[in-house]
Amino acid sequence: MANHLRATDETAVVLESLKTAVCEANLELVRRGLVLMTWGNASGIDRGSGLVVIKPSGVPYDEMRPGHMAVVDLDGNKVEGELHPSVDTPSHLELYKAFPAIGGVVHTHSHYATCWAQACRPIPCLGTTHADYFYGEVPLAEPLTKDEVGERYERHIGQVIARRFEDLDPMQYPGVLAANHAPFAWGASVAKAVENATVLEEIARMALHTLALSPGQPPIPQYLLDKHFLRKHGAGAYYGQKG
Amino acid sequence: MANHLRATDETAVVLESLKTAVCEANLELVRRGLVLMTWGNASGIDRGSGLVVIKPSGVPYDEMRPGHMAVVDLDGNKVEGELHPSVDTPSHLELYKAFPAIGGVVHTHSHYATCWAQACRPIPCLGTTHADYFYGEVPLAEPLTKDEVGERYERHIGQVIARRFEDLDPMQYPGVLAANHAPFAWGASVAKAVENATVLEEIARMALHTLALSPGQPPIPQYLLDKHFLRKHGAGAYYGQKG
Amino acid sequence: MANHLRATDETAVVLESLKTAVCEANLELVRRGLVLMTWGNASGIDRGSGLVVIKPSGVPYDEMRPGHMAVVDLDGNKVEGELHPSVDTPSHLELYKAFPAIGGVVHTHSHYATCWAQACRPIPCLGTTHADYFYGEVPLAEPLTKDEVGERYERHIGQVIARRFEDLDPMQYPGVLAANHAPFAWGASVAKAVENATVLEEIARMALHTLALSPGQPPIPQYLLDKHFLRKHGAGAYYGQKG
Amino acid sequence: MANHLRATDETAVVLESLKTAVCEANLELVRRGLVLMTWGNASGIDRGSGLVVIKPSGVPYDEMRPGHMAVVDLDGNKVEGELHPSVDTPSHLELYKAFPAIGGVVHTHSHYATCWAQACRPIPCLGTTHADYFYGEVPLAEPLTKDEVGERYERHIGQVIARRFEDLDPMQYPGVLAANHAPFAWGASVAKAVENATVLEEIARMALHTLALSPGQPPIPQYLLDKHFLRKHGAGAYYGQKG
Repeated sequence: MANHLRATDETAVVLESLKTAVCEANLELVRRGLVLMTWGNASGIDRGSGLVVIKPSGVPYDEMRPGHMAVVDLDGNKVEGELHPSVDTPSHLELYKAFPAIGGVVHTHSHYATCWAQACRPIPCLGTTHADYFYGEVPLAEPLTKDEVGERYERHIGQVIARRFEDLDPMQYPGVLAANHAPFAWGASVAKAVENATVLEEIARMALHTLALSPGQPPIPQYLLDKHFLRKHGAGAYYGQKG
Repeated sequence: MANHLRATDETAVVLESLKTAVCEANLELVRRGLVLMTWGNASGIDRGSGLVVIKPSGVPYDEMRPGHMAVVDLDGNKVEGELHPSVDTPSHLELYKAFPAIGGVVHTHSHYATCWAQACRPIPCLGTTHADYFYGEVPLAEPLTKDEVGERYERHIGQVIARRFEDLDPMQYPGVLAANHAPFAWGASVAKAVENATVLEEIARMALHTLALSPGQPPIPQYLLDKHFLRKHGAGAYYGQKG
Repeated sequence: MANHLRATDETAVVLESLKTAVCEANLELVRRGLVLMTWGNASGIDRGSGLVVIKPSGVPYDEMRPGHMAVVDLDGNKVEGELHPSVDTPSHLELYKAFPAIGGVVHTHSHYATCWAQACRPIPCLGTTHADYFYGEVPLAEPLTKDEVGERYERHIGQVIARRFEDLDPMQYPGVLAANHAPFAWGASVAKAVENATVLEEIARMALHTLALSPGQPPIPQYLLDKHFLRKHGAGAYYGQKG
Repeated sequence: MANHLRATDETAVVLESLKTAVCEANLELVRRGLVLMTWGNASGIDRGSGLVVIKPSGVPYDEMRPGHMAVVDLDGNKVEGELHPSVDTPSHLELYKAFPAIGGVVHTHSHYATCWAQACRPIPCLGTTHADYFYGEVPLAEPLTKDEVGERYERHIGQVIARRFEDLDPMQYPGVLAANHAPFAWGASVAKAVENATVLEEIARMALHTLALSPGQPPIPQYLLDKHFLRKHGAGAYYGQKG
C-alpha cells in the first residue's frame, strides 16, 4: 500500500464515520475512568481500505475532535492528519494484522488490569461476570526480550501478543495483559473494544479482591464457564433482544 | 394463568404504578454505583394479580422508561411489553414463589458482594452496620451442579437460593450470595430491595477490610446482634419516626 | 431542667443559629462521603442553656432543613421540634456531659473508621497526617456488656466512651472507635466535629494501607508526634493565619 | 537578597503570571483528588529574581485567588502579600536551592504516596507506567532526627530530601517520599510538578496492589526502564508531538 494513497470517495465517507467513532471511543475511555493523563488510545480499522484511524499522540482529551484523528495504513504510513499517530500505533497494527475478525483496539493503563500485568499473572476466571466476556483466564503475553525492547519496541509488543494467541481465538478472549506493562482489549468495533476494556478492568478488580478473601480460590467449573460465555456469544446465544 | 390474560382495570392501574417503581429502582441501582454495563435488574410483584414487572433484557439504562418494563406471570409467560424480560427473570420468579412476603427483587454484580460470592464465603456479621439489616451472616447459596446449569439454568439459580432459605426467614436475611456468581437482594417493595442491595454491598466491603485488619475476627455477640436487628425490625422497633 | 422549659429570647437566637450549623454539618457529612443511607448524625450544644440541637431520626438528607432539627436538654427531654431526635441522642448527651470543652459531636458509620472499630483495634499513629489531629493512637472504647446493651443501650455507648477518656484529654483525641460499632468524633464546634470525623476516616484508610505495605510498622517517634500536634494545637501553635 | 526588595517592572510581570500559575496549580491538586482539607501546597520560582510564589497558609481552596499567593525570597523573607506563606515554605526553599533545574514544587498528603511514606519504603519500579516518569524507584528520604525536628523542622525536611539526592538527578526522579510524612514532587514548572505529583499517587497505588498480587515481584529489567524513561525524556525522546 503506497505512501501517497488517495482514498476513494467511498473510503472517505467510511473514514469520516470511523474518525467520529474512534474519537468518541477515546473520550469514553476517560469517562469510564480508565485513563489518567493521556495514557490510553483507541483505534478502529476500515477493513475495506485497510486503513486504521487512531488517536494522535500526546493530545489532551478535552481538546480532542474527530478531525484530530490520525489515519495510517497497515504498514504504519501516515495517510491523513497533521498530528503524529499515537506512539503505540505499531502495537495496534500488529493486532489488526494478526486478528482479522477485530475492528477496534484499545490500549490503556487502567488501574487494576495494569496491576495484574505488573504482577505478570493471568487473571483466573473466578466468576460469571468474567465468564460473560472471556472464555477462560485473561491471557498474559510474555515479557519482551532485551532485543525486542531495543528495536521496534512498540511493534514487538503487538507481535508478542499475537504469538500468545496462536492457539486462542481473539474473539473468545477479547483482551490481554502485556507483562510488566498494561492491558490491551479489542472487539468487532472500536466501541466494543472500549466495552471489553471496561469489563477487563472490573474483572481484574474483582479477581484481586476475591483472592484477598480466598487466596487459593480455583477457577469456576468448565460447565459454568461454557454456560455463561455461550449464552452471550456464538450460535446459541439468547441474551439481550436479538433472539 | 393463561398466556393471553387480560388484566382487569384495577390490575392495570397497579401495574402502571409498579412499572414506574421498577423502572426507578433499576435507575437507582446505577446511581448507587451497583451496576456496570447492564449487569443488574430489579423487579416488583403485584401479589393481587400475581404479575411481575421486570427490567427488559440488554436495554441501556439511559434510555429506560416505565413503558419498557416487561410484565410476566409467575410461570414466566409474557403478558405485556414488546421487549424480552431480563434473562434472569426465572430466578426472580422462583424467589417470588418461595418467599410470599417479598414484593421486590434485585440482582446485581455489585463489586464487593460479588467478590464474596466468587470467594464462596458467607459474609460474617462483624458489626452493627451489618446487624441493622441482616439477622446474622449473609447466606451463601451453594454452587449449581452440572445438570442444574445445563438446563433451566436461571430457574435453578432461584431454586438453589430458595433451598438455602428452608430454615431462614427471608425478611430477616434480605439477601444472599449465589456462589461463583453474584448477590440477590429483596424486600417488601422493590425500593426496599434496592436499599438492601445497597447495604449488602457496603457490608461486604466493610467485612473485607475488617478481615484485612483482623483476619480471625469473630462475629459480634448474639446480644448485640439482637439489639440492632430488633430495634429496627419487628414488634419492638423504635428506630425512625414511626414509634 | 424541666420538660416544658421556655427558652429566653437570647437562647432562642442562639438555638436558631445552632440549628442552621447542625443542619449544615449533617449535610456536610453526606458531601464528604461519610454517610450511606441515614447512618450519621451531628449535634451541637449551647452551653449557656444546656440545650442540644441534633438531627431528627430517619429523615432523608435531601429534605433536611434547620427547622427539622430536634432540641433536647441534657436529660434527653424534648424541648422543641415535632420529629423524634436521632436514636443515638443519648450517646451524644453522655459525651456533652463528660467532656465540658466540646461544642459538637458527630457519629457516622464512615467506611474505614468503622472497619477499625469492627476489628476492635485502636488506630496507631503512623504518620504526620494523623499527628496533626490526634495526639497519639485513636482510642478504642471497649465492647459493651450484655447488660449494657440490654438496657439504655445508646446511653451506655456514650458512657463507655467517657470511661475510656478518664485519663485522656478529649481535645487532644477528638474521636474514638466504639468496638464492634463505628466512630464518634467531636470538637469545639459542630463544624470542627465534622472536620475531625473527616480526618479520622482518612487516617483510618491510610493506616490500613500502610500496614498492608508494612505489617509491623511502629508508631512515629514521640518527638515527631509532639512537633506536629503542638504546631497546630495549644499555646505554641504557629500553623495557619492566626499567629 | 534584601527584605525590602522592590521588584523591577519586568519581575513584576513575571510574578503576576507566576501567581496565576501557582494558584491554578493549587486548585488542580484539589481537582485531582490529591488534597483533603488544606493538606497541600504548590509553589513556583522565578529564577531571574530568585523569588518564590507559594500558597498562603491555611486558606480554603474555594476562596483562593492569585492575589492571595505569598511571595518570598530564597531566605524566606516575605516580599509581597498580606497572608503568611504556607508553613511548609522552608521545605520548598531548600529544594529550590538544591535543585537548580526545577521551577515548581508540590507537597501533598495524597493517599497512596503517603502510605508508602508512612511505611518508610521506597516505591519499586514495577511497570512501564512508573518508568515513563521515574528513572527507577521513587526514593525515600530518611526520617529526621530529634534535633532536626526540634529546630527549623520544615527547613530540615527540605535538607534531608536534598541529601537523598546527592547522587541522583532530580529531573530523573521528580519526586520523593519523606519518611513518616508524605510525598514531595517537582518539575520544570509548577504545572509539571502537579503532573508529577498526580502520577506519583497513581504509581504508589499501582505498586501497592501489584505487591498484593505478587508479594515478591521484582523491579522491571533495566532495559525496559531505559526504554520507557528515555523515549519520553532526554535527547532521544520521540513521545508526543515535539519530534
